[in-house]
Amino acid sequence: MKHYILQDAWNIIEEGFEPHLHKISESIFSIGNGRMGQRANFEEDYTGESLQGSYVAGVYYPDKTRVGWWKNGYPEYFAKVLNAANWIGIHLKINEEVLDLATCKTEGFRRVLNMQEGYLERSFTATLQNGTRVRIHAVRFCSIVDDEAGAVRYSITPLDASARLEITPYVDGDVRNQDANYDEKFWNPIAHELVNHEGYLTLETRKTAFQVTTGMHCVVERAGAALAPQVTTAEAKYIAATYHTEANAGEEVVVYKYAVNLSSENHPKDQLVAHAKNIMADVVTKGFDVMKQEQAAAWASKWEESDIVIEGDVAAQQGIRFNIFQLNQTYTGEDARLNIGPKGFTGEKYGGSTYWDTEAYCIPFYLATAGPQVARNLLVYRHRHLQKAIENAQKLGFKDGAALYPMVTMNGEECHNEWEITFEEIHRNAAIAFAIYNYIRYTGDAAYLAEYGLEVLIGIARFWAQRVSWSNDRHQYVMLGVTGPNEYENNVNNNWYTSTMATWCLEYTLQSLQYVQQQEAARYNELLQLTRFKAEEATQWQHVIDNMYYPASKELGIFLQQDGYLDKEQILVKDLPASERPLNQKWSWDRILRSCFIKQADVLQGLYFLEDRYDLDTIRRNYDFYEPRTVHESSLSPCVHAIVAAKLGDEQRAYEFYLRTSRLDLDDYNNDTEDGLHITSMAGTWMSVVEGFAGMRVRNGQLHFAPFLPSKWTSFAFKIRFRGAILHVQIDQRQVQITNASSHEITVFIHGAALTAAAGATVGLSQELIKA
Amino acid sequence: MKHYILQDAWNIIEEGFEPHLHKISESIFSIGNGRMGQRANFEEDYTGESLQGSYVAGVYYPDKTRVGWWKNGYPEYFAKVLNAANWIGIHLKINEEVLDLATCKTEGFRRVLNMQEGYLERSFTATLQNGTRVRIHAVRFCSIVDDEAGAVRYSITPLDASARLEITPYVDGDVRNQDANYDEKFWNPIAHELVNHEGYLTLETRKTAFQVTTGMHCVVERAGAALAPQVTTAEAKYIAATYHTEANAGEEVVVYKYAVNLSSENHPKDQLVAHAKNIMADVVTKGFDVMKQEQAAAWASKWEESDIVIEGDVAAQQGIRFNIFQLNQTYTGEDARLNIGPKGFTGEKYGGSTYWDTEAYCIPFYLATAGPQVARNLLVYRHRHLQKAIENAQKLGFKDGAALYPMVTMNGEECHNEWEITFEEIHRNAAIAFAIYNYIRYTGDAAYLAEYGLEVLIGIARFWAQRVSWSNDRHQYVMLGVTGPNEYENNVNNNWYTSTMATWCLEYTLQSLQYVQQQEAARYNELLQLTRFKAEEATQWQHVIDNMYYPASKELGIFLQQDGYLDKEQILVKDLPASERPLNQKWSWDRILRSCFIKQADVLQGLYFLEDRYDLDTIRRNYDFYEPRTVHESSLSPCVHAIVAAKLGDEQRAYEFYLRTSRLDLDDYNNDTEDGLHITSMAGTWMSVVEGFAGMRVRNGQLHFAPFLPSKWTSFAFKIRFRGAILHVQIDQRQVQITNASSHEITVFIHGAALTAAAGATVGLSQELIKA
Repeated sequence: MKHYILQDAWNIIEEGFEPHLHKISESIFSIGNGRMGQRANFEEDYTGESLQGSYVAGVYYPDKTRVGWWKNGYPEYFAKVLNAANWIGIHLKINEEVLDLATCKTEGFRRVLNMQEGYLERSFTATLQNGTRVRIHAVRFCSIVDDEAGAVRYSITPLDASARLEITPYVDGDVRNQDANYDEKFWNPIAHELVNHEGYLTLETRKTAFQVTTGMHCVVERAGAALAPQVTTAEAKYIAATYHTEANAGEEVVVYKYAVNLSSENHPKDQLVAHAKNIMADVVTKGFDVMKQEQAAAWASKWEESDIVIEGDVAAQQGIRFNIFQLNQTYTGEDARLNIGPKGFTGEKYGGSTYWDTEAYCIPFYLATAGPQVARNLLVYRHRHLQKAIENAQKLGFKDGAALYPMVTMNGEECHNEWEITFEEIHRNAAIAFAIYNYIRYTGDAAYLAEYGLEVLIGIARFWAQRVSWSNDRHQYVMLGVTGPNEYENNVNNNWYTSTMATWCLEYTLQSLQYVQQQEAARYNELLQLTRFKAEEATQWQHVIDNMYYPASKELGIFLQQDGYLDKEQILVKDLPASERPLNQKWSWDRILRSCFIKQADVLQGLYFLEDRYDLDTIRRNYDFYEPRTVHESSLSPCVHAIVAAKLGDEQRAYEFYLRTSRLDLDDYNNDTEDGLHITSMAGTWMSVVEGFAGMRVRNGQLHFAPFLPSKWTSFAFKIRFRGAILHVQIDQRQVQITNASSHEITVFIHGAALTAAAGATVGLSQELIKA
Repeated sequence: MKHYILQDAWNIIEEGFEPHLHKISESIFSIGNGRMGQRANFEEDYTGESLQGSYVAGVYYPDKTRVGWWKNGYPEYFAKVLNAANWIGIHLKINEEVLDLATCKTEGFRRVLNMQEGYLERSFTATLQNGTRVRIHAVRFCSIVDDEAGAVRYSITPLDASARLEITPYVDGDVRNQDANYDEKFWNPIAHELVNHEGYLTLETRKTAFQVTTGMHCVVERAGAALAPQVTTAEAKYIAATYHTEANAGEEVVVYKYAVNLSSENHPKDQLVAHAKNIMADVVTKGFDVMKQEQAAAWASKWEESDIVIEGDVAAQQGIRFNIFQLNQTYTGEDARLNIGPKGFTGEKYGGSTYWDTEAYCIPFYLATAGPQVARNLLVYRHRHLQKAIENAQKLGFKDGAALYPMVTMNGEECHNEWEITFEEIHRNAAIAFAIYNYIRYTGDAAYLAEYGLEVLIGIARFWAQRVSWSNDRHQYVMLGVTGPNEYENNVNNNWYTSTMATWCLEYTLQSLQYVQQQEAARYNELLQLTRFKAEEATQWQHVIDNMYYPASKELGIFLQQDGYLDKEQILVKDLPASERPLNQKWSWDRILRSCFIKQADVLQGLYFLEDRYDLDTIRRNYDFYEPRTVHESSLSPCVHAIVAAKLGDEQRAYEFYLRTSRLDLDDYNNDTEDGLHITSMAGTWMSVVEGFAGMRVRNGQLHFAPFLPSKWTSFAFKIRFRGAILHVQIDQRQVQITNASSHEITVFIHGAALTAAAGATVGLSQELIKA
């Protein structure tokens, strides 16, 4: 855990340059716009430890490296997200010495991520080895208005005397991935051009043949006049323009660098450069200041929709805003081909690809803070991949249209290659079905079933029906060889969560079939033909539903995470020495697997998803049993525990869990922020506040709240979109208020009390009344 | 299954060249001498499908490629056996056309592995595309007398008219591994020299820095006179001497190529070339014919010790001799640093490294067919690695001198990197303890305990005592998260075999402690100090022995392979369609793991090792249950089933299991012979005959036999070394005879009847008497 980020309601602030924290800051201060992302690498050269990272959405490389004994059915490749051309770079020599924070002395270093307006700012005074002192001030952003463009303003001011400057803005495509085996490179050069201060580099990924054109347009101004470059370089993987000038003491020389990143996913390959030039012309015409104003305005409207305001606790305020900011930087919902990588555009790990995180954690955030089409696009993404999911299941021996969605994917194919994950962590299939249910529950858009949802559900239901097997020994269906959400167990039998969600999927699919049959008979028949669905399937599904085995301990009154869980040595997390945490860094995998410790909510994840099926005592017994055994070494864990704790009235614990996710990256809680941010878990933090503290639920198509105010806070407030309404929910020590900011009446429930708010009206309950 | 190998008692014969079988034949016709091995690649160029393979004992490369999510405690590398410099190669041009069996027409192709004398012979007539017809005759061997040398005799005879010949014997170090990722190369050049017809190439392995010097000395004779090379080439990784000559029709030109392979494991690096030259001088002085005569004599004495003679079944005779021949080619027992790789020197797979195969399958063969020092060397090999085994256990979190031997190793370090194997397939530890017991049981050399054995046993016992955990739920010790010998299950709880062998190890270690204390008190005290052994440890071990949980089905009266085995869908192998076999090629890993099918003997392996603990009915019930569920997709499986079937009196099944291993590679039973031969399972075949058909056992220090004669055989006979005696055991339809070929009296048991044979005498029982 680290505490070097200064607390501020709207800004992430680092003061003083600490090289050992730089890679962490490179992650934290990342900027992005859903199409591209950039770690907080320095513009100027830096020879210290750094993870260079510039990422372009949808661009990856299929690593076919093999180790061990390859098994039948293994995925063909492991997808690597690629570090793409460096577009922020500016080589800078001052009196012939390279400016490099690893070799010069730095004072007044300050790095600020302005979340309100969406830009990164950095300033410092450097004393070079040759004695020259300069002041540097850099601002940059990835535009969410022009989402294929970014811009940098970089200024240099000699402090004590005039200084000779050699300024070389560049685009460098000769980049590496830190995770490359054998230092393999992934980009082949296609085209390069540079005319004076504007140039374009087109590179192609090896094997996958994605093309990306990266362009730059440089303006170097001294005393209000633009300089011309003295030297230009255009090579296969590198373009640069070099400016020589001399600046007087106190005189600022400013570099504007406009950059564009266009991918062949969005443009025909033969037009990449032409389109890049058009976009470049547009942004250069606007100029840096206008772009930055537009950026601020666009972010203001995002905040208008998704902000959570916390009073009385600036650390919490900063944490929640950071999470919301990063989520909005990662996914905008505008492109149904894109999704939310667990690390977004902030690191190489997890391959920038799609996990069940999207359905289990991110959908609720986007449902409530953006128009329904955003969450809908995330559902359609899976529908587009249905055929690949069917092929994926076939590779494993399933048939007749059974679909197994990949654990990790770029384009619908499985692209992770550990059997215990890809073959066995099949609960992801249930999360994808649950997201359809959740979307319809929230939006009321039941028509989605006929259009897309049912087809996906049938494929998923078929998978579960084939994946169970009949145990003659138990006279029940069992589910052998799975990995549950708790990945600290592999290849277990009868994981309660997986089995429970499997039969839930079968039930929901049967209900959905009936619904579509009743509502849209023609489409229903079309779907029956399309999916070759047979009535016997429904009969078999019902047989599985009626005869499924779920492990439980009668003695303890709990569901068992899996068969044999109680055989493990039962130690509680509180009895683990701090020196042995986190287990995944201190213990061998062998020891972890054999221990009772739970990586992330597993049984509790099921109780969270399906809470209305279980009485409070059941939830409490399971919570009381599993919580003390959970190490929360997945960032996806504490939020579920926070929500369940809140439901059980354990406000203190709910708040503690919230704290762990809220500032997970800002405080480097798990000692891994340098690899990238935990983007998908940020949605979980939002859930902790809205579903946890505010107790928001949808029941029978209506919004319910059961709020409490964490004792350290003065108040908290957030906006929610719900079925066309926009509600402003405010909770303080005196009351819970809900303002209907939309144009139609809505009825909401607070602690079970129905309150109807006319358009524009505010309704509320006093805390005294609630406590009574 | 293929049947293209001609049947012959002493030779492996292929007639006619079938390119699609060539890679299989390259494995089958491999030659080796324990220090080096060579696949049956052609001397001349061949552009068809081939797996080039020349291997040098002890030389490997640590592949550090990583995929997936790397876990804590994972081994650092995966060891690759390296294809080393090609020393057999001879480029040959005839009338300016390259001789290449992929492009010319071949007649009378015949390849013979002469097992009696230990050489490979090949002859054919080729019609080149330019119309020239030539007869080629090639003979080569790896000398077991000069074990760093090999020799080739290669003759060319134009048939119809004189022909211009361009003959280029060479050594080529620019070789590849088929299993290299990214076509990585593994050898760096160190030195090269060539003077006329003799040259040396020294290469060094990347990362591991093993050096190997490969030398050649060429003699090209025409009409009894040696020619001089016209052109010589000496490059960093390639040396060659080119001879131009013209041969008349019917005139034979003969190439003799003497080769040496010296490794820095056996010579100081700075003397490699000098030593190579000395050895070369020796073998050149002997000349090809003398070397070949010495080879034949040396093989004759190996056969004298280890032959099994089968009459009435030439396929069986050929099969068993092939197995014995390959075992003797792989390991000679002369170097305690070496061991027996599962594929010997015949392929890249399994990394040429050491597995539990050595202890579980190979030790019995070497115990009975070679002096006790050979098996002893295999035990000492593990003693040398004890410290590494302790370190390996420490990496996984074990302490206080607990030792976990690696699943796969080159030098004592674990060098395989799949968690379900290296962390969980821990039963190998028991096999290493059992081998000590087995060695002492067979040889009577109990002094080995004090010298080496006890120290290893203490390390192993400590591991088991820490690896079990106490289940409050069962009030017993359990063994969680293991992979048994049946690798078609991973990460199971309470594998009966593993748990049973674990407590067996504890018991045997306690007995051994007591024995050494009584017999060698001083050494005992020394060992207590050395190992820091404490009396409480023995108490705890006894507690584990007394309170271990072993899964069983009371209903079925069997031991359960693991908890939950009966939850699986119970299908029998006979009900599997042939098109789905072998499962490991036809089914996904997921499906295999969830099925009830057993890769290799698991419960039955335990009943084989510890048979005296169980009554025949118990063994029969388990055999009857597990055998029909076993697919024998490990080559190590059928031999155990053969022995158990023989014990149960099921002669027919015993013989069927024997057939599966006996000709496993000759008939390409598992469709994988092209990757290399199943060397370690060949010892299992020997066991099937000696422990199965002949029913040989050691009880109370005496040899017992319970022989039967397979109905297809007229007789079988083998020699056995036992505690200084040499016995010749002959079983035919009339009688079982044992001849004492040694100089002291010995008492043996046949079907329980004690028979004492004076030195030189023969004792026996008639089959009639036995049946009565």
